[in-house]
Amino acid sequence: MVGDFTHFNAEGRARMVDVHEKPETMREAIARGAVYMKPETLELIKSGGIAKGDVLGVAQVAGIMGAKRTAMLIPMCHPLFITGIDLKFCICQERSAVLIEARVRCQGKTGVEMEALTAVSIAALTIYDMCKAVDKDMIIGDIRLIEKTGGKSGVYKRKGEVEWVSLEQGNI
Amino acid sequence: MVGDFTHFNAEGRARMVDVHEKPETMREAIARGAVYMKPETLELIKSGGIAKGDVLGVAQVAGIMGAKRTAMLIPMCHPLFITGIDLKFCICQERSAVLIEARVRCQGKTGVEMEALTAVSIAALTIYDMCKAVDKDMIIGDIRLIEKTGGKSGVYKRKGEVEWVSLEQGNI
Amino acid sequence: MVGDFTHFNAEGRARMVDVHEKPETMREAIARGAVYMKPETLELIKSGGIAKGDVLGVAQVAGIMGAKRTAMLIPMCHPLFITGIDLKFCICQERSAVLIEARVRCQGKTGVEMEALTAVSIAALTIYDMCKAVDKDMIIGDIRLIEKTGGKSGVYKRKGEVEWVSLEQGNI
Amino acid sequence: MVGDFTHFNAEGRARMVDVHEKPETMREAIARGAVYMKPETLELIKSGGIAKGDVLGVAQVAGIMGAKRTAMLIPMCHPLFITGIDLKFCICQERSAVLIEARVRCQGKTGVEMEALTAVSIAALTIYDMCKAVDKDMIIGDIRLIEKTGGKSGVYKRKGEVEWVSLEQGNI
Amino acid sequence: MVGDFTHFNAEGRARMVDVHEKPETMREAIARGAVYMKPETLELIKSGGIAKGDVLGVAQVAGIMGAKRTAMLIPMCHPLFITGIDLKFCICQERSAVLIEARVRCQGKTGVEMEALTAVSIAALTIYDMCKAVDKDMIIGDIRLIEKTGGKSGVYKRKGEVEWVSLEQGNI
Amino acid sequence: MVGDFTHFNAEGRARMVDVHEKPETMREAIARGAVYMKPETLELIKSGGIAKGDVLGVAQVAGIMGAKRTAMLIPMCHPLFITGIDLKFCICQERSAVLIEARVRCQGKTGVEMEALTAVSIAALTIYDMCKAVDKDMIIGDIRLIEKTGGKSGVYKRKGEVEWVSLEQGNI
Repeated sequence: MVGDFTHFNAEGRARMVDVHEKPETMREAIARGAVYMKPETLELIKSGGIAKGDVLGVAQVAGIMGAKRTAMLIPMCHPLFITGIDLKFCICQERSAVLIEARVRCQGKTGVEMEALTAVSIAALTIYDMCKAVDKDMIIGDIRLIEKTGGKSGVYKRKGEVEWVSLEQGNI
Repeated sequence: MVGDFTHFNAEGRARMVDVHEKPETMREAIARGAVYMKPETLELIKSGGIAKGDVLGVAQVAGIMGAKRTAMLIPMCHPLFITGIDLKFCICQERSAVLIEARVRCQGKTGVEMEALTAVSIAALTIYDMCKAVDKDMIIGDIRLIEKTGGKSGVYKRKGEVEWVSLEQGNI
Repeated sequence: MVGDFTHFNAEGRARMVDVHEKPETMREAIARGAVYMKPETLELIKSGGIAKGDVLGVAQVAGIMGAKRTAMLIPMCHPLFITGIDLKFCICQERSAVLIEARVRCQGKTGVEMEALTAVSIAALTIYDMCKAVDKDMIIGDIRLIEKTGGKSGVYKRKGEVEWVSLEQGNI
Repeated sequence: MVGDFTHFNAEGRARMVDVHEKPETMREAIARGAVYMKPETLELIKSGGIAKGDVLGVAQVAGIMGAKRTAMLIPMCHPLFITGIDLKFCICQERSAVLIEARVRCQGKTGVEMEALTAVSIAALTIYDMCKAVDKDMIIGDIRLIEKTGGKSGVYKRKGEVEWVSLEQGNI
Repeated sequence: MVGDFTHFNAEGRARMVDVHEKPETMREAIARGAVYMKPETLELIKSGGIAKGDVLGVAQVAGIMGAKRTAMLIPMCHPLFITGIDLKFCICQERSAVLIEARVRCQGKTGVEMEALTAVSIAALTIYDMCKAVDKDMIIGDIRLIEKTGGKSGVYKRKGEVEWVSLEQGNI
Repeated sequence: MVGDFTHFNAEGRARMVDVHEKPETMREAIARGAVYMKPETLELIKSGGIAKGDVLGVAQVAGIMGAKRTAMLIPMCHPLFITGIDLKFCICQERSAVLIEARVRCQGKTGVEMEALTAVSIAALTIYDMCKAVDKDMIIGDIRLIEKTGGKSGVYKRKGEVEWVSLEQGNI
């Protein structure tokens, strides 16, 4: 059974819930996602044309900047002080996809799940944008929370996820 | 075979390609995506707690505002004058998901695919944010371009997609 | 007699005053305002056309997002961490107006008056925008601080204001 | 009798109406508003402390920058190319108020009413912010559209308004 | 002799000058600047640590995104539709500096000088940020307009500037 | 010899370094820069046309607002709570330049060098923008960190810099 929504006020309208009384703790969230594409597009990102990784380099900057903008994009999200962001990419031949992982940390009263998910989403959209001239069929998917620590709701760990290093080694 | 990337300059670095000589035409793009969730969460959005649709109402405003911010989020995206945006949501019991469709129009020199995909992404992230207190396992996925018209590259229509009205009627 | 302006430096130019030595305390501010309109427009918002409250639903999201942007809009405003925002609307037949109240909280070194006033202003502008096709004569007015707590300047309470619940019951 | 709302789609949700087929014409809008305050506060702005007009100087920059941000603040507003903005202020002893007028122009498919009203609102909030240390009782009010030209809905002129020059001469 | 300032209104206050009657033409502007640093820092950017060019890769994305934000940063700047942006970097041993060139194009009523200068400035600040842990003495300088075409004021070409290719070949 | 870059992760890509474990201390940074121009332009700013200082007044507001936007402009910059900003300008006849100094303070885990340098840069760009109709040859230069206190890296003081008051008195 699920509990109650916490983003609505007594009139049934959305509000930004007050987190004033929550303690400031170290929060971390890890999110992942993927951009599925044609093998040729993946090859082009990997080895092709220009320097390997430039598409991913631009996507990484976009993801980091996007994470900092989360509270401006998601209406009921609290502004918070991100203390660190790291994005990783992995070319996955088996799934013909670029896999993305974002890890976000802050010292604050609310979690950083949305920041991590936003980082992945904006990075994925940037990959789409930079490759769309050669492949319009790409699909952005599997954007999900992997792990979350800090705060009174405790640790969340999604079941069935492997370590990132396994993804990098192609063990999927 | 795929063509060449168009977002890199002679030094192999990213640039914003010059669209100065492209004609201004009416452009339209349709994108779709989904937020997969537990049936209880879907039920809560649908009938539950407060007024039906408030989660979706907030997501819709977020998606529209996100679309207007696309060029500020996606590094190599051209700023353009969106002339219209429409977002639709559909509660899909079979897939236990909220389906999202964004339709964006502009009069300009470049397409609005990225604006439509960004509208869907931000709307999906907003749904996640508003329901995450009751369901952290939600997955945002299947974000894809459905249709694109205008511009010299002509019409793009993704294969195998059904009409939105069919989705609304549960024919999937 | 009034004191001295605190936003100017020794050269008489504006600066953002240093609040570094102020203690972090819980701050709250309540602001109100109104959008005066034709009775027909009010009726249309209330019962009309589509679902009641959608105009107000959009205005609410806009007000909350506007509050988070206050320091980007008001030059000498300090950025701060809003911990909670709540907006309420009340259809007031007697004044033929939509009344708006915003309540903002933060834990910080400066007050949140400007955030509350900005929330009301952006919500009011959004109501204007969504109804202007049917009524260009609307007037946005009476935007004022109702209450402010926290910080060394102590509690401020505007005289002659009634409780929000009285406004909702039409006792004005 | 009033017409129909134009900001809702078939499902009763808000959308950004498509203005694609509207012709591009020269649009102008004039809006006004006021910040009512204690005579001492007005005096302080007028002659006091430092150089006259610095409060208004900061408010003017804020109003102009706010107008450029309108489509980012008001959810259903179309982004457009403002070609010119002018803000005027008038110290009005009779009303113990600073009067504000914004005049905005663009070449586009939609009007600039919201840009003019937003310019006035942000300028008024800035005046409040810069004077609030000496006067928390100020009221922002009478924000209204004065005139609008261009576009198929034709000229709008609010009744009972005097010329700005009359306001400056104190003939009110 | 110099002419008159064009950014002030009759009251001597700043305004955004109306460009409504200017024709839309193709505009281009080229700006340059430099970040002067210790030879060791330059070496570190060039060959060092990680992949060559990553510092410059991030700076390039930042410069392009900064250019799109120009009208939000510079108060009296008109918003406009950039159609293309290109940034180049050159490691200059003789001056112990990273040289930066930005080329911006638009189809519009006003020039893009500010966009090109802003692109160079933000790219330079980003280089400073990414290297400041090893060198706080860096100086950002020589930010200047090199060339400007389009518009009634005609072509501007700064005297004494060499071609970019000469800079790349170390002929300075 | 210089140390290692701190903005790259194990894959050699940029990341926002985690400052979570750094203590919160009072941080201050002072930066300076200059806009070099024709003597006539300088004269026009100083005494000319309209009220002295309006160009600088607008530049000051722009610099303060720009500083608040630093983390949105510089990709790897941490968002932080600026507690105070002050900008000073000095008309320097000898160098035919406007000198700019920004002083920024915060209570936080990272320094405010980038905020001070950004404030100077945006103020300089604004001066350029407001005078470019009469002088396109202006050069923005000498943007540098003067002093930095707070944090474990201790105090930084650039050698060979004079006090601001000396600059104001023309002792350079």
